Amino acid sequence: MKYGITESVKTINSKIKIKDIVLDIVEKKANAIKYFLEGEEFKQAIIFGAYLSGSYIAHTLIKDCEEVIIVDIHPHLKDIIFDERIKFMDLNKLQLELRNKTTINPDLVVDLTGLGGISTDILSKLDPKVLIVEDPKGNYDKKITGIDNTSERISFGNKKGVLKTYRSSKVSKTSGTMTLVIDIITDACKTINEIDGVLYVIPNLKYFEGTIFHEKDVKKFLMELNTPAITVSSIDYVEYELDEALCKNISRVNSYVETI
Amino acid sequence: MKYGITESVKTINSKIKIKDIVLDIVEKKANAIKYFLEGEEFKQAIIFGAYLSGSYIAHTLIKDCEEVIIVDIHPHLKDIIFDERIKFMDLNKLQLELRNKTTINPDLVVDLTGLGGISTDILSKLDPKVLIVEDPKGNYDKKITGIDNTSERISFGNKKGVLKTYRSSKVSKTSGTMTLVIDIITDACKTINEIDGVLYVIPNLKYFEGTIFHEKDVKKFLMELNTPAITVSSIDYVEYELDEALCKNISRVNSYVETI
Amino acid sequence: MKYGITESVKTINSKIKIKDIVLDIVEKKANAIKYFLEGEEFKQAIIFGAYLSGSYIAHTLIKDCEEVIIVDIHPHLKDIIFDERIKFMDLNKLQLELRNKTTINPDLVVDLTGLGGISTDILSKLDPKVLIVEDPKGNYDKKITGIDNTSERISFGNKKGVLKTYRSSKVSKTSGTMTLVIDIITDACKTINEIDGVLYVIPNLKYFEGTIFHEKDVKKFLMELNTPAITVSSIDYVEYELDEALCKNISRVNSYVETI
Amino acid sequence: MKYGITESVKTINSKIKIKDIVLDIVEKKANAIKYFLEGEEFKQAIIFGAYLSGSYIAHTLIKDCEEVIIVDIHPHLKDIIFDERIKFMDLNKLQLELRNKTTINPDLVVDLTGLGGISTDILSKLDPKVLIVEDPKGNYDKKITGIDNTSERISFGNKKGVLKTYRSSKVSKTSGTMTLVIDIITDACKTINEIDGVLYVIPNLKYFEGTIFHEKDVKKFLMELNTPAITVSSIDYVEYELDEALCKNISRVNSYVETI
Repeated sequence: MKYGITESVKTINSKIKIKDIVLDIVEKKANAIKYFLEGEEFKQAIIFGAYLSGSYIAHTLIKDCEEVIIVDIHPHLKDIIFDERIKFMDLNKLQLELRNKTTINPDLVVDLTGLGGISTDILSKLDPKVLIVEDPKGNYDKKITGIDNTSERISFGNKKGVLKTYRSSKVSKTSGTMTLVIDIITDACKTINEIDGVLYVIPNLKYFEGTIFHEKDVKKFLMELNTPAITVSSIDYVEYELDEALCKNISRVNSYVETI
Repeated sequence: MKYGITESVKTINSKIKIKDIVLDIVEKKANAIKYFLEGEEFKQAIIFGAYLSGSYIAHTLIKDCEEVIIVDIHPHLKDIIFDERIKFMDLNKLQLELRNKTTINPDLVVDLTGLGGISTDILSKLDPKVLIVEDPKGNYDKKITGIDNTSERISFGNKKGVLKTYRSSKVSKTSGTMTLVIDIITDACKTINEIDGVLYVIPNLKYFEGTIFHEKDVKKFLMELNTPAITVSSIDYVEYELDEALCKNISRVNSYVETI
Repeated sequence: MKYGITESVKTINSKIKIKDIVLDIVEKKANAIKYFLEGEEFKQAIIFGAYLSGSYIAHTLIKDCEEVIIVDIHPHLKDIIFDERIKFMDLNKLQLELRNKTTINPDLVVDLTGLGGISTDILSKLDPKVLIVEDPKGNYDKKITGIDNTSERISFGNKKGVLKTYRSSKVSKTSGTMTLVIDIITDACKTINEIDGVLYVIPNLKYFEGTIFHEKDVKKFLMELNTPAITVSSIDYVEYELDEALCKNISRVNSYVETI
Repeated sequence: MKYGITESVKTINSKIKIKDIVLDIVEKKANAIKYFLEGEEFKQAIIFGAYLSGSYIAHTLIKDCEEVIIVDIHPHLKDIIFDERIKFMDLNKLQLELRNKTTINPDLVVDLTGLGGISTDILSKLDPKVLIVEDPKGNYDKKITGIDNTSERISFGNKKGVLKTYRSSKVSKTSGTMTLVIDIITDACKTINEIDGVLYVIPNLKYFEGTIFHEKDVKKFLMELNTPAITVSSIDYVEYELDEALCKNISRVNSYVETI
C-alpha cells in the first residue's frame, strides 16, 4: 500500500501477479492432457509450440516419457523452457531429421500451435500413436472459426483428442493462454470497480507478445509477467477483494481433452 | 501493423494515444470553465492543482487574466506546466505570502484538488470574486461521497460554480481525468472484443500516477501517455474500428459548471 | 419448482417479488426524508405525486403530521393510497382551494413529481416552512439533465432539501422507483446467467406504467407487481442464488436528502 | 408512441416483435440444415421435437421430402405445426409403429430434442441414411456440458452432422431458440439504456414456456410472442434505435451443421 495523490486515497496492488494466472491456466491444460493419457507411458513425445503453455506441459509429461522434445519455429523460444530435461528443436531441424526418420519417431504428439500453426503435412509424417491437438477457438467467432483447421489436424494417430479450454459463462475469443489471462484480468477489473470506495482500477497489461516475438527477449517477457495483475486507487484497503475477484475469474477456466 | 505469433494474426494499435484522450477531457473541463466565466477578465487567477487538468486550464485562462498562478503541494509538478506565461507556486510559499497578502489577491480561484485537497481555510482567506471548485465525485459511491467536502469549499466568493464531469450512461467513480481515461479505454476494449475476428484486446494502461507522484518523474509520465491507447490481436485490419470505439466513448464525457 | 420442457431442466422463481423491490426502495426514500426532518412535527403536509413512492412516504409522515394530503393530477391514483388516514386531492381541486387559501396552508411540502411535474408556480404559492423536492436525475444523461428543473423548484421555504436516490456503481438514468426496479432486476439477471447450470434467465417485466396510467387500473397494476421478479431455467435448484443476486442489487440503492 | 406519466416522456415500442426474432433464428437453423443436405431428396424425414424450431424446419424440408413427420412427447404440440403437409406423431405412437417398422423407415432424421431429449435407443432403431442432431450447448457451461450427450446420439447413419447455433462474441448458455431470443432482447436493452434521453428499458419477457408446457396453451403462447420485444420510456422518439439495437444483436446468431 502506498498513498495516492493525497493521503485520502491509497494505491493497492493485487497479490496475484500476471504470471500466477498464466501458471494456473497452463496447469489446467497440462492436467487435462494427463487425464486424457491415463498414465500411459511414452518413448518419445513431441510438443509443437513452446509458447505459452508448451514449456509447462512438457515439464509435466517428462515423468511418463523417456524423451520430450519441444519444437518451435522461433529458435529464441528455447529460453522459455525451464526444465533442463526437455530438448528443444528448431522446426527446420525437425524437418531435416524427418527425412531419415532415425531419431524422430514419437508415439505422442501434442500440437499447441493453433491458428496459422504447423502444417498437417508434418503431423501426417509423424503419425503418432497418440495425437492431441489444441483447439484455438474460444467462444464462437465467425472469422476465427473460418481460419481454424483443428478438424483437419486431428486426422492422424490411433488415439486422438482435442484440447479445449473455455471460461465458463464468459467470453474469450480463443483458448490461448494470453487471451485467457487478458480476459480474466479485464473482467476482474469490472467487478472491482463496483466496490464501494474504489476510485479507479488498472489492469496492468501491455502487449507482452511484442516483447517475446518482436523484441525476442524472453527474459524481459518473464519479468513483465512478474507484475501485480491489478492496481487500484481506493479509499479503503481492498487487497483481499482484488485477489478474490481475480480468483473467481480464474476458477472459471475449464480445460479438457475431447476424445475424437 | 505487425504480424502476431504467426502470419494468420495481426497486431494493431489504435492511432489514438492515451495523451489524446487526456487532452480531450481537459479541453472539455477548460471549456466548461470558460463558458461559466462568460468572457469576464481577471487580474489574478489562482489554480489549485497542477495535475492533470490544471496546467491546461491555466493555459486557456491566461488570455483573460493578467496573471495566472498554479499552486501545488508537490514542487516537482512545476514540470507539467507547458505554457511559460503561467507562474508556479509551492503551497508552502503561498501560505507564507498570504500572511502579508501583498502579492496574493486573486479575483478568480479554481480549486481542482478534489478528495483530500486543500483546506477550506485557504479558500476562505483568499475570498475571491469568483470561485470554481471541481466536484471530484462521479457516479454515486457511498464512501467517496462520504469524504467529499465540495459543498464546504464552495462557500466563498460572490460568483460560485462547481465543475462537474461525467460520462453519460457509463460508470466513472470520480471526475478525475485519470479515472475518465482509464474507464474510456476499458469500456472501448469491451466493444472491440466483440468485433468479428478479434482475438484479444489490450488496454495499454499502467499505474501512471506512480510515475508522476512516487517516482516524481514528469517527463517519463508524459512519455508513458504517448502510447497507443489500445493494442489488439486480430485476423483483420481493424484500425478504424479501434479509433471509432474510443471516439464514441470519449464523446460520452460531459463537463459543465453548475452555478451555486 | 416445476420441470421445464424435459425433466433434465427445472423452472425456478425468485422468492423476491417485484413488489418487494418496490417496497424496499420506497422505504429508503421515506427514511431519507424522515432523517432530514429530524422528528419535527407538522400541521399540514402536502405530497405531490401519489405514484410510486408518494403513498408510502405519506404513510410514514402521518405519525408526525396532523394532516397529510396527497395531490395528484390523475384522480384514479386515489386507489394507490393504502393508509386511510391520508387525504387525496385532485390537482384541480387544490388550485381552486389555493384561491381562498383557508384550508390549504402546509408547513411541509414534498414534491415527488419529477420530469414534467407540477409547476414552480404552485410551490411558490404554498411557500411552506420545509420543502423537499425529489431530483429525478440518476446517472448523468445530457437530455434528462436538460429538461430537469429541480434547482428552480427548490427556491421556496426556509428549510430546503433535495431527495436523491442512486444505485451505487451502477447506471440508472433516473431516481424513479420504476427505473430502479427495472435496472435492479435486469442487472441481477446478468449475474444469475453466469451461474453454472443456468440455461436462461427471465426478468418478469412488462410496461407496468401502461396498466396504471393508460388503462388506469390500479388493482391490476398492484397484482402485476405481485410476481416473482425473476424466473430461470436451470439444471440445479438455484432459488437461493436468485434471491441473493437480487438482494445484492437492491442493497446498492441509496437515498438521502441533500440540504440546500 | 404514447405519453408516459407526464407529457415530457414518451413510451415507445420496438417494431420488432418477439415472434420476429424467433422466426429469424429458426430460419437460420433451417438454412443451416438445408445447406448441409445439399439439395438431396428424401422419402421419409422424421423430426424429433416440434418446439420451437421443429415446426419451421419441417416446413422447409417438405419440398425435398415425400413425407415429413414431427414426433414429440407432448401431444398438444401438434397445434404448433402450421404447415398442413406435415404429419404429427406422438412419441408413444412412434414406438408402437417401430415394432412392425412398416410405415416408419426414415432416410433422414433430425433430432432437436436436446437436453433430456429422446433416447439414443430410438435413434439406433431408426438408423437413417442421414442423421442431424442439434447440439444444445452454447457457451461452455460445466453442468450443461455434463448432462449433454450429443456425441452419443450422433453415432448412427452414414452422413452425420451436428447442428450448432451460437451468438458471436456473446454469451448464450444453450443453442435453444428461446434462450437465444431472451439473450438477444436482454443484450439489446443494455445498449438502448445508454442512449441519451432514455429513462428506462423494458424487455417484454415472461416465462413463455410455462404457457406452452404447463398450461399447454399453444394459441396463447403464440399470442404472447406477438408482442413488441422492447418498450422504453424516453424523452425522444427512439423507435429506429430500438430496432437497430435488436437487429445488430439478431445478426450475431450463427447456425451451421458440423459434419462428423
